[in-house]
Amino acid sequence: MKIVDLRSDTVTKPTLEMRQAMYQAEVGDDVYGEDPTVQKLEELGAGIMGKESALFVASGTMGNQIALMAHTNKGDEVICEADSHIFYYEVAGIACLAGAQARPISGQRGILSSDRIKHHIRPQDVHQPRTGLICLENTHNRAGGTCYSVQELAQIKELADSNHIPVHMDGARIFNAATAQNVSVEKLAEKATSITFCLSKGLCAPVGSLLTGSHDFIQECRRYRKMLGGGMRQAGIIAAAGIVGLETMVERLQDDHLHARILAEALVSIGMDIDMETVQTNIVIANVSSFGITAKQAAALLGEQGIKAAVFGEYSIRFVTHHGIEKDDINYTAGIIAKLVKEINAGLL
Amino acid sequence: MKIVDLRSDTVTKPTLEMRQAMYQAEVGDDVYGEDPTVQKLEELGAGIMGKESALFVASGTMGNQIALMAHTNKGDEVICEADSHIFYYEVAGIACLAGAQARPISGQRGILSSDRIKHHIRPQDVHQPRTGLICLENTHNRAGGTCYSVQELAQIKELADSNHIPVHMDGARIFNAATAQNVSVEKLAEKATSITFCLSKGLCAPVGSLLTGSHDFIQECRRYRKMLGGGMRQAGIIAAAGIVGLETMVERLQDDHLHARILAEALVSIGMDIDMETVQTNIVIANVSSFGITAKQAAALLGEQGIKAAVFGEYSIRFVTHHGIEKDDINYTAGIIAKLVKEINAGLL
Amino acid sequence: MKIVDLRSDTVTKPTLEMRQAMYQAEVGDDVYGEDPTVQKLEELGAGIMGKESALFVASGTMGNQIALMAHTNKGDEVICEADSHIFYYEVAGIACLAGAQARPISGQRGILSSDRIKHHIRPQDVHQPRTGLICLENTHNRAGGTCYSVQELAQIKELADSNHIPVHMDGARIFNAATAQNVSVEKLAEKATSITFCLSKGLCAPVGSLLTGSHDFIQECRRYRKMLGGGMRQAGIIAAAGIVGLETMVERLQDDHLHARILAEALVSIGMDIDMETVQTNIVIANVSSFGITAKQAAALLGEQGIKAAVFGEYSIRFVTHHGIEKDDINYTAGIIAKLVKEINAGLL
Amino acid sequence: MKIVDLRSDTVTKPTLEMRQAMYQAEVGDDVYGEDPTVQKLEELGAGIMGKESALFVASGTMGNQIALMAHTNKGDEVICEADSHIFYYEVAGIACLAGAQARPISGQRGILSSDRIKHHIRPQDVHQPRTGLICLENTHNRAGGTCYSVQELAQIKELADSNHIPVHMDGARIFNAATAQNVSVEKLAEKATSITFCLSKGLCAPVGSLLTGSHDFIQECRRYRKMLGGGMRQAGIIAAAGIVGLETMVERLQDDHLHARILAEALVSIGMDIDMETVQTNIVIANVSSFGITAKQAAALLGEQGIKAAVFGEYSIRFVTHHGIEKDDINYTAGIIAKLVKEINAGLL
Repeated sequence: MKIVDLRSDTVTKPTLEMRQAMYQAEVGDDVYGEDPTVQKLEELGAGIMGKESALFVASGTMGNQIALMAHTNKGDEVICEADSHIFYYEVAGIACLAGAQARPISGQRGILSSDRIKHHIRPQDVHQPRTGLICLENTHNRAGGTCYSVQELAQIKELADSNHIPVHMDGARIFNAATAQNVSVEKLAEKATSITFCLSKGLCAPVGSLLTGSHDFIQECRRYRKMLGGGMRQAGIIAAAGIVGLETMVERLQDDHLHARILAEALVSIGMDIDMETVQTNIVIANVSSFGITAKQAAALLGEQGIKAAVFGEYSIRFVTHHGIEKDDINYTAGIIAKLVKEINAGLL
Repeated sequence: MKIVDLRSDTVTKPTLEMRQAMYQAEVGDDVYGEDPTVQKLEELGAGIMGKESALFVASGTMGNQIALMAHTNKGDEVICEADSHIFYYEVAGIACLAGAQARPISGQRGILSSDRIKHHIRPQDVHQPRTGLICLENTHNRAGGTCYSVQELAQIKELADSNHIPVHMDGARIFNAATAQNVSVEKLAEKATSITFCLSKGLCAPVGSLLTGSHDFIQECRRYRKMLGGGMRQAGIIAAAGIVGLETMVERLQDDHLHARILAEALVSIGMDIDMETVQTNIVIANVSSFGITAKQAAALLGEQGIKAAVFGEYSIRFVTHHGIEKDDINYTAGIIAKLVKEINAGLL
Repeated sequence: MKIVDLRSDTVTKPTLEMRQAMYQAEVGDDVYGEDPTVQKLEELGAGIMGKESALFVASGTMGNQIALMAHTNKGDEVICEADSHIFYYEVAGIACLAGAQARPISGQRGILSSDRIKHHIRPQDVHQPRTGLICLENTHNRAGGTCYSVQELAQIKELADSNHIPVHMDGARIFNAATAQNVSVEKLAEKATSITFCLSKGLCAPVGSLLTGSHDFIQECRRYRKMLGGGMRQAGIIAAAGIVGLETMVERLQDDHLHARILAEALVSIGMDIDMETVQTNIVIANVSSFGITAKQAAALLGEQGIKAAVFGEYSIRFVTHHGIEKDDINYTAGIIAKLVKEINAGLL
Repeated sequence: MKIVDLRSDTVTKPTLEMRQAMYQAEVGDDVYGEDPTVQKLEELGAGIMGKESALFVASGTMGNQIALMAHTNKGDEVICEADSHIFYYEVAGIACLAGAQARPISGQRGILSSDRIKHHIRPQDVHQPRTGLICLENTHNRAGGTCYSVQELAQIKELADSNHIPVHMDGARIFNAATAQNVSVEKLAEKATSITFCLSKGLCAPVGSLLTGSHDFIQECRRYRKMLGGGMRQAGIIAAAGIVGLETMVERLQDDHLHARILAEALVSIGMDIDMETVQTNIVIANVSSFGITAKQAAALLGEQGIKAAVFGEYSIRFVTHHGIEKDDINYTAGIIAKLVKEINAGLL
């Protein structure tokens, strides 16, 4: 049976070029700061983001958690979106590792306005935590891959600056945000004090993310990376694939976006409930409740036909396009789903 | 100028009977478990709540924080109301001390339904924290002194039990909740695994709260109290006032409730914006935005007339009735406010 | 049976003058900063220590833990003596509350030299924590009430300053240290960035300690006190006793020291193993192993005769003199112990 | 100039066979549990250690920190050797991440006896933390690569079991310990509840370690790995090298040990101060104080001749043999050092 895996862009496998780069990678002991490939990747990443410095980390979660530890003091509060990865999917690390309290607030399709943030900045009061950090997720995964515009970011930056609060951007899919808005990532990153982005996901590297920011900030982060056990020895092996990802895989993200849009439109045309305004990048979230089934049941029915989707709430399933998905796969998927919907509507399932 | 202090029931001063009890209190070293007055208070408090054991602590916050530390594991998530004291006013202790992530969700007038809670219990998933505790505030301060009914609590307890999650009740003003609903505190406490309540506030003792629960739980809490520095030596001095509070001050809470209602109705009658459904106990929250002024401005205007109220948000002010407030004070206050409103409406202020 | 309780100076009970002061104390809501008696005590304490500001806390442990939280960053290391109260008796709060690692090092009779400390200050290294604080205990309890001299403190301060590391002094019994060395407490406190001292213990107040330091430091500490639940409402009641303690009980500490020395000499004369060089203040630690019994057995034998002593290790028992102990009690105790030793030596026990 | 890098066995580079294995590795998304190569490595590692389950982690530090988080409760105490990696080189993670207090005690050449440990297990006491874990480092790095014997481990295990305290072994170089004592690693691992070991270092893999223990323990650890950001996507790439390390690089560790011994004997013969009883595996620690120079100066002098050694204290330097060091390199190194010593003794340096 043909398998189309649309669960996540994290399932992408390293390309042949990446495998070759890893095979040949020049390496050294990165904990001693001697791995030339890691250094090259960090310089490349910092440059693309327009930041002074970068740190290679094992995952986006690690990049976020290190940033949280470095930006906050014990007992600070961190403003984040209620469905953000940092709050939702990082095992409460924000509290357990940084000792900081998340202040989750709901955004509009995952996007927080400066006005909404403003009302949640704490006043000076001995009873209340200090607001120590604002976190933004761009693109926002659980909201369906939605993007912050440069203008929205500029307003938030202004608010943050006037309150002396740093801004961390969880830019796991920042290249998708830039591609969708036809803007440079640097323009987006400029509005954040620090930014994490992933080399896996759309860029296809097997392992790793980069955390970028000022030189001093990254120096501090290096200590926290060591504490979390993220200091890796001959990490140049995997960094080599990251370089290939940054250099060759960004352009093709527009294909993923096109595929997502085609899929979403096809699904809507057969009666699926999708908020099309969220289909901005490579993610499609569909609500299946109108078919009288749960997300788990939907995913199971699809799975039987070789279509893999992620359960994303009680009635929501998520499809993510990526390097492993061709336009044919999209058409094939839409066809399978159309057939299933017909059967459900006919009471056959 | 006559002063009417309606900022909080925490401003209550010890009664003469309390002062006498403190003067005569038999004491010992409570860290060695040898203070007979503390022991008497703990037994009395546990008995009233229908729990096996109680622990005397320096404040409601300390009782809550100890309970959080004892109930949760590192990296757990704690469901609480978005405006609850534990989340809003305890300086992020939940994260900093317990290493747990608050999951603040909005209730109906501060009251969480079991249905609402249910949707926020985390599934088994390596990305997600475990839901380790449910916290309820009864009465709910920031919502205006609203109460959980026995039935609402029973439903939450059933949900919690079926998910093996303990329930902690922040019952700082649990006697107000019981009085308002004409039910025993034991009936309310029965639905919680542990409950904190204050001897200051409505009960007028100068210092102290009790945390109650099972014998084993309180034993564990005793260690955390020591860690936080809450082990006090001849604490019988202040415990003595707590005993007087429990024995003599509960009955009179109905007067506070009556006074709050009278005040609220008077304020509504002169055009103030008050959600009367929240005026269930001794708290009145009024929104002053319709007068074109902020809460800070309103509190300042009142203050000039000797009426003290608490700023409770951008446009909300809070009045709390308590032992130091007589019916005359309420009428006096209503009169002053009526005059101010008239002047505002006449454009004189 | 006559009882002589030499377990600790924490068992001291408030004096009549203290009870009267508490009875009459003018109070207010200290969380609002409105308790005049607390304010008076804080000013008095800050003045005596020669510091800008002071904070009233529920216990010496709370004072220490707040200082640790305020002085350190997550993941710092704190140099302390291996048998210090902060490391030994504060339930690992240093790690759990401050997120800092204790670096316990053995002193000479509990006293750390600047030279010894110097070798444990961490170098700049990504693998290693930063040395964020040096803690000194003066007098040192587990070492037998030993004192830091002004000169020793001056050397440590110089080392600390040159490494930009603050010094916190756990001065639970700092008045004993000053009395024994005939020096002002201010001279001792001058060498520390912050200092905690107890109003209970030798000063006989029922509850409470003061943490003192710079104005900014104490402001920060006020937040952590709130987080730990140490914000107490009409705390003036107990603060009143603290004022009496500071004003009337310091002079008499020399009696406690005299009594300790008399007791220690008497015990040595009947063959007990006591390091007389440690008997500098009001503590006597005796090793009972030469009698072929454990500390628990020794304490039990004494207890049967009405003499209460603290088990302080496998073979060590501690006697502490205090306000409740007269010279007659010391002679009586020495007599009882002489009789017991004779019986043990005669094989009768 | 010929370079002989003896700073650490972490500088080893992946072998050609490892590069090939990585090139061809079958991979999947390991966060979804779908990477066959990671699974193969985890099964292989668990089997070798005789444990039910294993977890692939980014480093030895990560393995240790996860074990600490999973074994302990907030405020526990962890017994470890005063110079152990966990206490010395993991940036205070034990406090900051696990909220646990390290209790560092000095061993004999880094080795703790059960008797020594016994005296540091805390009694039941509300003032004191609970002893929640015993950590052993085998081989012990800072002591010079010393080993715990099976018998020593058995005694510690018996003590630990009778006190219901788990034992975690930091076995970063456990294969060296097994090789040196001609015993299976399983025999050594059997005495520990959990064990971490590195695939880098002597086994030459570029990145990664394994944490092993019971099935339930590893399940819990999986959550903490996610929290720390150690969940890696197509981690099979680096796991492939780990498999090659486990299958082909263990045998050759005896060469490293032989080389270390040859080097140590040569250095002693020219007057260097080395405790030969510590030269049990692949580490040689030499004290250079008798030459009137510091470790930094010694390392600099060596570095000018192409010999890299690690500064390991004020007067100690460390040499580590590994896969990149042949017998000729040892002789060459000894020759260079002999020449330097001669020059120093002649007053030429």
